[in-house]
Amino acid sequence: MRTFSQDFQTELYNLMKWRRDVRHFKPDPVDPELLRKCLDAFQMAPSVGLSEPWRIVTVNSPLARQKSLDNFKAANADALASYEGKRATTYAALKLSGMSDAPVQLAVFCAEDTAKGRGIGVQTMPEMRRYSVVSAIMSFWLAARAHGLGLGWVSIIDPVQLRTDLDLPDNWSLVAYLCIGWPKEETETPELETVGWEMRNAQLTTLIER
Amino acid sequence: MRTFSQDFQTELYNLMKWRRDVRHFKPDPVDPELLRKCLDAFQMAPSVGLSEPWRIVTVNSPLARQKSLDNFKAANADALASYEGKRATTYAALKLSGMSDAPVQLAVFCAEDTAKGRGIGVQTMPEMRRYSVVSAIMSFWLAARAHGLGLGWVSIIDPVQLRTDLDLPDNWSLVAYLCIGWPKEETETPELETVGWEMRNAQLTTLIER
Repeated sequence: MRTFSQDFQTELYNLMKWRRDVRHFKPDPVDPELLRKCLDAFQMAPSVGLSEPWRIVTVNSPLARQKSLDNFKAANADALASYEGKRATTYAALKLSGMSDAPVQLAVFCAEDTAKGRGIGVQTMPEMRRYSVVSAIMSFWLAARAHGLGLGWVSIIDPVQLRTDLDLPDNWSLVAYLCIGWPKEETETPELETVGWEMRNAQLTTLIER
Repeated sequence: MRTFSQDFQTELYNLMKWRRDVRHFKPDPVDPELLRKCLDAFQMAPSVGLSEPWRIVTVNSPLARQKSLDNFKAANADALASYEGKRATTYAALKLSGMSDAPVQLAVFCAEDTAKGRGIGVQTMPEMRRYSVVSAIMSFWLAARAHGLGLGWVSIIDPVQLRTDLDLPDNWSLVAYLCIGWPKEETETPELETVGWEMRNAQLTTLIER
């Protein structure tokens, strides 16, 4: 049996604690070889029926970047309008995406109707394909962090509009828009806690027995 | 800046490669303290707006176990009926869940309407709450594997039926039914590859540029 040392276990937890959602990036470029190495984590992730439904779009051209940023800005303005008073002020001051400065930007989709996997495990829960993509993103996130790269997951975006703007197949669902680069600063405290938006629970409070 | 050693990076990739979906368990019990330590990974996972929408149900009682197993068996019989010929024979021979032998079984739900996080990041993509739960499951999975535990994710199950059977709130969505215990054997090759159901791609083939 394969075993992992206690040092490794401790360091794995340190990595998870230190992971964070990064939204402030230095302008320094990311070595394509390093990015590629981190992307290898996708291939190691679990996927239902080995369907590997992830489709990764590198958003590089100025036009694709602009359309994606406009999409975020519109969704963010709508979201801001749903808050009032002090809450709205706090929301307006938050930096919720690194899309203006992240050197690498990936839109990650799920191919909803891929034949790969031959439908195993998705008959009662078709959402398992999207969950496979999320598992791969989480693996990639940890791999990137282990190499010092920062990653921020943007979900304030109209997913159908983005797919249309990037001219992608109708049967692809957007799972995440990822901003990647070298972090400007490091912290173990989420920005949402720092500004008083929301706090994490100190421990797992949601264990129920049946 | 926090850095991780090259040894750690290599070992992290080894962990991801060796992770696997485990469906064959020894009868040995899992130390509750070890399980608890692995569950700590949930609290370290990213969640949209720090909403922490995961709700973890330990399925322990004989009645709850029986209902869950019946649910799987019915869904699995329906799935089998959708295949024909050799494919059906292969499907029938697969062991697709460890529900008959895993000492620990967890049903993991997402609280769709939690107030925590105050709605940030979920207005255009409400599925982000479920994706947060998947991220936490993936973190838990890696933590469990680093401690030598095996985990199998069952998705051949009627999610609404399970929620009803376990008497849980209507606004909770099932994300995963997890079987956990000490693996009977270790392999880096998925069972679906061994029996010829499906193969993994050798490398990431789905990078598209825009």
